[in-house]
Parts: sequence; C-alpha cells; structure tokens
Amino acid sequence: MADYERLLRVARGSEPADLVVRGADLVNVVTREVYPATVGICEDTIAYVTEPGDIHCSARQVIEAAGMWLAPGLIDSHMHIESTHATPEHFADAVVPRGVTTVAQDPHEMANVLGCEGVEYMRCAARGLPLRVLTFVPTCVPAVPGLETSGAAFTAREVEALLDGPDTIGLAEVMDYWGVIRQAPRISEIVRAGRRRGAILTGHIRGLGGRELNTYLAAGIDSDHERLTPGGILARTRLGMTVEITRDNIAEAVESWHQRGGLDNLVWVTDDVPPHELVREGHLDVAVRRAIALGMAPADALRAATLAPALRLRRPDLGQIAPGRRADLLVIGDLASFSVHLTIVSGRIVACDGQMLQPSQPGCRPPAAALHSMHRMPPSPDQMAVRGPGRTALARVLTGRGRGLELRELPLASGAVAWEDRPDLALATVWHRHGLNQNHSAVLIAGSGLRVGALATTYAHDSHNLVIVGRDSADMALAARALIDSGGGYAAVAEGQLRALVPLPVAGLLAEAPVTELARGFDAFVEAAHALGVTENPIRLLTSLALPVVPSYRPTDLGLVDVERQTIIPAFEFDG
Amino acid sequence: MADYERLLRVARGSEPADLVVRGADLVNVVTREVYPATVGICEDTIAYVTEPGDIHCSARQVIEAAGMWLAPGLIDSHMHIESTHATPEHFADAVVPRGVTTVAQDPHEMANVLGCEGVEYMRCAARGLPLRVLTFVPTCVPAVPGLETSGAAFTAREVEALLDGPDTIGLAEVMDYWGVIRQAPRISEIVRAGRRRGAILTGHIRGLGGRELNTYLAAGIDSDHERLTPGGILARTRLGMTVEITRDNIAEAVESWHQRGGLDNLVWVTDDVPPHELVREGHLDVAVRRAIALGMAPADALRAATLAPALRLRRPDLGQIAPGRRADLLVIGDLASFSVHLTIVSGRIVACDGQMLQPSQPGCRPPAAALHSMHRMPPSPDQMAVRGPGRTALARVLTGRGRGLELRELPLASGAVAWEDRPDLALATVWHRHGLNQNHSAVLIAGSGLRVGALATTYAHDSHNLVIVGRDSADMALAARALIDSGGGYAAVAEGQLRALVPLPVAGLLAEAPVTELARGFDAFVEAAHALGVTENPIRLLTSLALPVVPSYRPTDLGLVDVERQTIIPAFEFDG
Repeated sequence: MADYERLLRVARGSEPADLVVRGADLVNVVTREVYPATVGICEDTIAYVTEPGDIHCSARQVIEAAGMWLAPGLIDSHMHIESTHATPEHFADAVVPRGVTTVAQDPHEMANVLGCEGVEYMRCAARGLPLRVLTFVPTCVPAVPGLETSGAAFTAREVEALLDGPDTIGLAEVMDYWGVIRQAPRISEIVRAGRRRGAILTGHIRGLGGRELNTYLAAGIDSDHERLTPGGILARTRLGMTVEITRDNIAEAVESWHQRGGLDNLVWVTDDVPPHELVREGHLDVAVRRAIALGMAPADALRAATLAPALRLRRPDLGQIAPGRRADLLVIGDLASFSVHLTIVSGRIVACDGQMLQPSQPGCRPPAAALHSMHRMPPSPDQMAVRGPGRTALARVLTGRGRGLELRELPLASGAVAWEDRPDLALATVWHRHGLNQNHSAVLIAGSGLRVGALATTYAHDSHNLVIVGRDSADMALAARALIDSGGGYAAVAEGQLRALVPLPVAGLLAEAPVTELARGFDAFVEAAHALGVTENPIRLLTSLALPVVPSYRPTDLGLVDVERQTIIPAFEFDG
Repeated sequence: MADYERLLRVARGSEPADLVVRGADLVNVVTREVYPATVGICEDTIAYVTEPGDIHCSARQVIEAAGMWLAPGLIDSHMHIESTHATPEHFADAVVPRGVTTVAQDPHEMANVLGCEGVEYMRCAARGLPLRVLTFVPTCVPAVPGLETSGAAFTAREVEALLDGPDTIGLAEVMDYWGVIRQAPRISEIVRAGRRRGAILTGHIRGLGGRELNTYLAAGIDSDHERLTPGGILARTRLGMTVEITRDNIAEAVESWHQRGGLDNLVWVTDDVPPHELVREGHLDVAVRRAIALGMAPADALRAATLAPALRLRRPDLGQIAPGRRADLLVIGDLASFSVHLTIVSGRIVACDGQMLQPSQPGCRPPAAALHSMHRMPPSPDQMAVRGPGRTALARVLTGRGRGLELRELPLASGAVAWEDRPDLALATVWHRHGLNQNHSAVLIAGSGLRVGALATTYAHDSHNLVIVGRDSADMALAARALIDSGGGYAAVAEGQLRALVPLPVAGLLAEAPVTELARGFDAFVEAAHALGVTENPIRLLTSLALPVVPSYRPTDLGLVDVERQTIIPAFEFDG
C-alpha cells in the first residue's frame, strides 16, 4: 500500500499526486450514476475523487480524458487461467488491456496434472504481474475419484496446506456436489477445512434445486456458474447465493435485471475462455459489452464486474473509485461499446489502446516437473487396435457427443474389432500420461464427422490424459508421438502427416507464448480438424470427451464411465 | 457453529430440524421481496429455506406463524452500550425482545474511565449472552488529549493489544479527524495499527467535506454517523462511505431512498440511547419502524438494519435468512408497526412478546476497579467558591449551551466571585475523579433555567469526570458527596435534600440493573431537575457540558476550552 503519510498529504492537496485523471465522467458503481470527476492517485492508492475545477490537483502526470469515462478495473471472481493456454504472464498481457485488473483463479487443470506443485507454480508465476491474481484452491482433484486417474489426488491435507499460501482466499468450485450432499468423506473433509478457516467456499452444481440445493448451501458453499433462466437467477438470489454469470448466460441475466432492477448478488465471470475466442471477442469485457448492448444500464453492467465481485471476494479495497481504495481503474474511450483506452493497476498505467506498455515478467518460470509432464512412451499403431476373443464384438458406441449410447455388432479381423469400414465411426482412446500407471481405454464414437486421420490433445478435462480420436491407427500413433515429443498440446494428423500442432509444453496445458500466437495455433488446428471432416467444435470434442461429470457416457483412462450411475461399463463385449 | 454432519442431514430432510418456523411470509432483504416460506434450523444455523408444503420439514419444535412475517435479526453496527447505563447482560435483556440480535459496540465510555480493563470487561461481560456482541476498539481516549484528563490515555500500543482480543473487528469512531488529517502522531499511529491488521476503520466527523473529507477517507476510515441531508447522504455514498443513520436522521434517509431507490451503503445505527428513551421508544427497532412509517418499503427498511450492516461488519454469515447462515431471525407480529413476536438467536427462541424467556447471565462481573472508580474526596461547599484577588472579576459566561460566550463583570465578596444574586446564572464545575490529579475547574453558565439546588453526574462525555451544576454551594457539595458515596451516577439536590439519585456504581457509568429500573430512575431525575427550574433536557445539559469536541466553549477538569482554537482560556479574570 501507498506510504500513509504521503497518501494523506496528496489527499489534502499539500503534495502533488503521482497521477491525476481529469475531464472524464466517472461511472459510480455504488450510486449507479455517471458524473464528471477528477481522480488523484498516490502510489497504488486513490487519494481523492473531487469535482472538476478543484484547484489542488497538481500532479507529476496528468491524463486529460475529456469525452471519456472512468470505471473501476474489472474483477473476474471465477476463472481458470489454463483455459487460455497461456502462462500467467502472457495471460495478463492479453486481458489487462481489456480492462481486467483482478482475477480469482482456480488452477484446477494444473492441479490435476502436477498437484500442489502446479498450484504453487500458478500462484508464484502470477506474483508481481500488473494484474492482481487471487487464488482459490482446487477441491476436486480428480473430479471423480475412482473413475479416472489424474496426475494428483487432493485430500483435505493438500487443500489445507494450499489454503495457507499467499493470496489464497478459499475453496474453488466444489464440483463434487453429490459428495457434499451425501457426505462423502474426502470432499466433506475438504469443505470442513475451508469452513474452519472461514474461507470463501465457491461451488459448481448442475441442475440442483430444492432440498439438495439447500443442503449444498447449508455446507457453506454459496455460488455457482451454471447457466440459469431468469427465474433460476431469482431463485438462487433468494437463497443468498452469489450468481456467477458466464458469457453465454448474459441475456438471461439482463432479462432478470430488466424484471427486477438491481441485482446485488450478480457477478460476471469468464470460467473458461480459449485463446482464439479471447483474441476475437475478449475476456470479462465481453460480459460488460454484451450487457450494455442488451440494454442494461452501464453502471449496473459494470457493477457486476467490479463492486459485486469485490464484495464477494471480501476485498473492500477493490471495485470502486473512491479515496483510500486501490487505484485499479480504467479510462474508457467509448462506454456503449466498452472500449478500454487505458488500464491503470495499482496506480500505474500498464496498458493503452489494447497494448501493454511493457510485456509482463512472471514471478517464476515453470518447474521442471511441468516441462516434463508426458510420462508415457508413444503408443504404436498396433496398440490402437481393440482386441478380443471370438468373431464378433458388441460395441457400445457413443452418440450425440456422449449423451447417448448405441449397441453395434462389429466383426473381428485378426483378433481386432474391424470398425474402420463404418464411415460414421471413429475410435476414441484415452492414455494415462502422468506416470502413475499404464492405463488406456478405447471406445467408438459416432457422428463426429471425422473422415480421415486423427486428432489428439493433452488438455482433456479434468485429468488431462492423452486423448486421441481417429480413423486410422497409424495417424493416431503419429499424433500421440507428436504430442509426447512437444510436451503436450493439440495435434491434427492425416495420411501420415502432421497437419497442425499447438505445442503446450507446460504440463501439456500451457505455453509460454503470447495469447495471439496461441490463437493462431488454435485457428490452424480447428481449420485442420474441419478439413478432416469434423463437423462440431473440435476443441470441445476433444476437451470434454473424457470428463466423467458431463452426462451421460465418457471414456477415461479407466474405461467407459456411465456418468449417471458413476460406474464403469464395458465398451466392447466379445462373443469368444 | 452447528455440527456439520447433522446440519447437512437436517438440510436434506433425513433428520428432523431442531426448530421449524412455518406459515409466515419471509421478508427477503436480498431480493427485497416478501413471500411465504418455511425455515428449518439445526442448532445455531439455518439448514433450509423452502416453499410451504415441503413434506420433509419435521422438527422437534414447530412455530406456526400464519399471518406473521419472518425477518433477519437486527444488527446495530455502531453503538455504545454504556449510553443505556446498563451492564451488557441487562442491555441484552432490553434490546433482544425488540429484535436486536447483533451489536457492534464501541465501549468508549468505559475506556475513558478504566482504560483497557474497561474494554476487556465490556467484552467479557458480553460473552455467552443471547446477543452477538462484536467490539470496536475505542481510538480517542481521551477525545482531546491535553484539554481534558480522563481515566486512561490510549496510544497505538493499547489499541493494538485490544485489537488482538476476541470478537474485536476494528477501530471505533476516529473522532479526532483533525488529528488524522493533520497527521498528529498519536491518532496516526492508531490508524496505522488498524490498517496493518486490515481491520474495519470507522469514523465520526463533523461537517467535513471536500479535500479534508477525502483525506480522512484516504486514511481508510470510511463511515460516519453525523446527521446528514439527503444531498449529504448521496455525496458520501458516492465516495464509497458507509452512511450510518441515527434515529434523528431517518426522515432524510427515507427522502434520499425515495429519490434514488436502493441505498446499498445505508445502515441504521443507534449510537446513544438513554434508558428512558429505550423503554419508551425502543432501540434499533425504532429506525425500522420509523422508516416504514415514512413510506420506505419494509424490505429496504429492514435491509439497512440486517444485510447492509452484516456486509459492513464483514460477516457474510449474518443478515439474511438463507441456508448455511446463522439462525438469528425474528417472527414479526405486524410488519407495518414492526412489532416483534419472537426473537431467535443462534437457533434459540430467547424472547417472546417483549419479554426475555430467561434473564441473561453476564460472562463476568465488573472488576474491582469498576466498582471503586470515584477517586476523589467529596469537595466541601467552600471549595465551590471561585476565589481571586481584587474587587471585581470579569467572567466568561457560557450561553446557548456553550455555543456562545458573554463577558460579565461580577463583584467579589470575601475574595470569592459573587454570582448567586444573578438569577440567570449557575456555576458549572468539573472535578477530576480518576485519581490522576486533583484538577477542578469552574465556569458560569447562563440560561440553564436552574433556580435552586444542584445537579451532578459522573457520566460526562468523554472523560466522565464529576460534573456539578448548581445555584448553591452547599447543595453542590451534597450532590458530589451523594455520587461519590454511590460510586457515581446522577443526582439532584435542593435545599439540603437529595431529590433524586440514579446510582451508577459500575465505573460511575453503569448499573447492574434492568433498563426499566434505570428508566424509572432517569425519569425521576429529569422530573426533579425540571422542578429545580431546568428548562432544557437536563441529561444533555450535564453529559455534553464537558465535551471539548462540541463547539464552541466547554469546561473540562483542566479549565475552559475554546473548542475551535483547541486551547484553554481563563473563565475568570480578576482585577486585583
């Protein structure tokens, strides 16, 4: 914080401010008004907010902002940096020019690959950035114990140790809501560890209501970012929940606002934003922009990205432009389109017109374990075959992106299931890559559109094993080898040739590269995947394929998971 | 907190609740709606809030509340228990039946008499009460160092030690705002001690605005309870301040609400409530009742006494009726008149229809130092004389309750100022009573109305020395003796007889007596004072006479203080 003595001298006008912004209209997210004001800053703190014309406003640096607006910096209270595939410093450089000045990260993906070391890296890399990064401790590592093998498993012991770390404010989304409600020991101990510390307990639930929702809330977990109707938003607000609205849910939130006026508990969050969407559309600024475009008053649209998340994060020093608060603020060129001219963090101008003034330096580089996270020999083409006794196999084929299941009888050729002549099928395989075992599994999927070649990734929620979907075993093996060689990432292969590669050498999740570069890689990968025939979003196809919390059928390294029954079922049955 | 395992079983309906309230309309202070709901409680926590007709609502005890309302318990975020003159347990018994379930006390008066021991007593006596008592550490002990002698003097050392105590949440009203703004060492060190701990810093300022107000806020002190106009309320809300509205300022706050709608930062507080007013009108319930009577929506009127102060006090577990929150709630018989039927604190019904179910037991009794706080021999009638050389004296006479000063020439008789034949004058004397010195001072006051006798008190803001106002030196001495004998309090004497006595034997401030009994004593004292001719409020006359922060002229044990100049001026000048 600013030197106290100097701060007060600047506030009362007996010493020049470090920075003064004048001529702009201040968007007040407390009173929800817009009016002209001059803001004086001393070091990292707002020293005064005064009317235009105050004579005691000398400063070392003055920003003349006539015709512009002043708003608090944006605060994202639920997000995963890993979803952008950039290491924290490159993430900062991508979002700070868009007006994001604070994020509360949940390094859930890094935790699933590297355990505590992954969380510690994400915390340490974020230190000293021109972006305030708070951390929630991942609680569900892996998401579904016993149905998948991730690189680490957290009990209350790991969570407690991480909770005591710097800038760490609570428990990240407690996805295992059935475990909470049914009082499963592991997650109950983790929740109790959070409660003992008086930490913020954040949640994620799917379609929960009634007494089950009450039970989850009684445990002290009082937020969620699942998509809601306006009625759902109201119902949860009534129960005191913080309603986290992702960018695909803004229309419903604005409708709710139109119906009910002020929504104190509403916060915009990003959750996951892939790099090409970040570059094309934006980050948390998208929420503000869309809400304003949908007719929400700008002060209310901003409140849900500033004051409301600051209160949620129990940071009264953030989220508003007022004397004594942190000098995290934005000079907005055009309020209606929410175009950020300047981003000021802790009193320093760090970005101007979409560009950082200086590239950010990470608090630390990735640890060795992150740079060597592919603990698996490349599988051979032969290992892609599904072998069994007899002459035919009954295959459980995933349809509708895992929502349905279809039984198909397939012949065996040389002891392997012969599926390649069915043009609607592809083989999806999951390979444990964290060195804890040699597990792998295979299941057929229908309707992906893939005609030839193979797609692979190591960013596969939530265990981030190696997922390969393909029509050709040689191409599948080549894709695997390419990712193992590059330390992980995304690969598209066809006819024995690498068509696209996005290397993510940090834990197989991230790259130490600008988000714009990652976005180009993703665009190329998506293009290559579509060229191979994939009709749906290939990123979503790969990254959610092995996520055993999404209904209804998902392959993991342990086999085919029946998500509703939370059990493993055979993907193939042989008649021999 | 409630047993976690059991709480969740009750929440999901697999075990009966301890208490269910059903049939009532819930006043939701988050969404500002009123709708029917059933509330289930497990131990001290709300387990569920569900729609009427939920079948899994069995309970050990059921309150049928058809035709009534449910509201969160009231939270008073700025108040002095001492103003009621009751020890904490009797205070609780007076306010809990009125719906107050949490108070954030500032034991400023006890601190001025007994220092840290006084604060510790107020904290410890409050432990285990059916009332949640949080504590702010008094910061201005004495209010104006160098111009009065109280029983203790706090530096940052005392404040820091107290801040680390139980249930202690921040710094109490930093009244020495000039000291903050001008960076006087003592108060600056105290503020910095609070800042270092991230404590809540509360304020009290008089008529401050512009850059001076900004400076005070820059120090991190962001609340005030001075009376404001609607424009003043808006101006302070703009600056991010918590606007604490006392009961004489509710009309302006409601007007502001009518003009602007929701006022997130508005909280009702009581500050000071004397016992006879508490019994006659009420406590924080008065604010809710008045606001509703003035046309404020009940949910908004309640929000300012529940959710808003809970957020201010950084207690997300308080202030709303929702699963997982503390079961502090009220069953309201009639919402329009805000009549509280039942008060439930931590899940226990503790008061019904204006009566406690059981008298409260204090966490501890007053310490010996509190029971022997009159460190002064009774002054003799002769000591009441103002002596000096020569034949005449020029007296600075206080007019308009200390707002003005008038010069009067008075003769000397036998070496003492002869003022008794001027019927509009009375002598006001202040006697140090804390044993630190033998100081006393005298000044003449005009316009009190006092014709005969004497009035005295040991509850005299903020140093709580012995204040005696009289027309007759023998009566003044008798009043002093009565208070010294009874350990402090209020006394009215005339013609050699004690006309009224309110003993306050705990530090000369409090009695271990029900507030109703204290109220009767106060009524008798006020009646006696009026019988002696006092026209204005005799309590206010005595208690604010020696308060050297109220403009313009105030006597303390050190002499006559010119408040604006913050210096001592002679009350009498002699020609000899």
